[in-house]
Amino acid sequence: MEKRFRAHFINSLSGFKSANLIATENSQQQSNLAIFSSVIHLGASPALVGFITRPDSVARHTLNNIKETKQYTINQISHQFYPQAHQTSARYSADECEFLQTGLTKQYIENIAPPFVAESHLKYALTLEDIIPLPLNGTQLVIGRITDIICPHEAIQPDGYIDIEQLGAACISGLDSYHNTSRLSRLSYAKPTLPVQELTTTGVTVTGVNNDK
Amino acid sequence: MEKRFRAHFINSLSGFKSANLIATENSQQQSNLAIFSSVIHLGASPALVGFITRPDSVARHTLNNIKETKQYTINQISHQFYPQAHQTSARYSADECEFLQTGLTKQYIENIAPPFVAESHLKYALTLEDIIPLPLNGTQLVIGRITDIICPHEAIQPDGYIDIEQLGAACISGLDSYHNTSRLSRLSYAKPTLPVQELTTTGVTVTGVNNDK
Repeated sequence: MEKRFRAHFINSLSGFKSANLIATENSQQQSNLAIFSSVIHLGASPALVGFITRPDSVARHTLNNIKETKQYTINQISHQFYPQAHQTSARYSADECEFLQTGLTKQYIENIAPPFVAESHLKYALTLEDIIPLPLNGTQLVIGRITDIICPHEAIQPDGYIDIEQLGAACISGLDSYHNTSRLSRLSYAKPTLPVQELTTTGVTVTGVNNDK
Repeated sequence: MEKRFRAHFINSLSGFKSANLIATENSQQQSNLAIFSSVIHLGASPALVGFITRPDSVARHTLNNIKETKQYTINQISHQFYPQAHQTSARYSADECEFLQTGLTKQYIENIAPPFVAESHLKYALTLEDIIPLPLNGTQLVIGRITDIICPHEAIQPDGYIDIEQLGAACISGLDSYHNTSRLSRLSYAKPTLPVQELTTTGVTVTGVNNDK
């Protein structure tokens, strides 16, 4: 396969990906903003989130800044500003600020050095915990612990689930395709002896799955 | 935060997640099928895909089988069978087959020991390459190299992108919410001096992003 064809093709195989902007600052308070489709939940307690980075990629400034200051913010991308978010992947030089170049807005919170993205509806600050090299292809898994979360109260459901669809969160497929979502349903905690049930705001509804055969 | 509330809450923060079924077999040809929302693209060349697993989870049979036979298949979950896919997360005993319990269908391909999920529209076989422990929370990153891909030709676009939305692929948010998608657009490769453009099947359309300021 031709290199670019292969990149599009293989990138489509894992399924839909999260759409996030990672904001950092170096020790001279110069900020950087970069899009990542590899942000992944690692665990709830402690609250750990990871992302994959390539040393030679346009994301190298992100990694350098995180190593320097140990702090960063992750900001969910919503359909209202996904073209600006995508534009942060352009290869700007280290002294060009992606906030300025794309028109996205910095938002500062007390005691957190790097900015948040004001346009993002769900965002959080992290402290670097570990950088794990993946020798197979020279990438690295960067792991952070969540320290502060900015989330609209009305999106938090009684059981703790955050309705990110209501917040307009986008997702990504392949290298460059952006998508809105529409909920199929939430499903009950699966047990061997019970059929799957749809969770609704008023209760539960039995779906057509027969797991008794 | 109460433990279950916290799990729902923190699991929502990373954004939308891929929805995949991993099928394995042990050395006695007993098969296992388990849902994962942590499958992640790691690189195109070599073609590497990873997923996160917890040693004590219901997914322990998946990991044991992969260690035993070094082969597994990843099968994208589509909206047509997401309740059955969810039901594989029930804590069945090692001698119960999730294919049988959920009504999903095994599909065997020559020279690949573990089954595929017949209902899945996009699926591939992998060989185990590495298992990387994440000491922070006792999870592991399991990395496989893609060896064989089953994908409908009509979903592959001229540049290699696979239209997984057309294939009905679902995505997940939090622990139990399943979503369909609708495409916002594909965007052109971003360059510092060019505005973002929408890719269309007939060419490109300029969107409203101004990155010249």
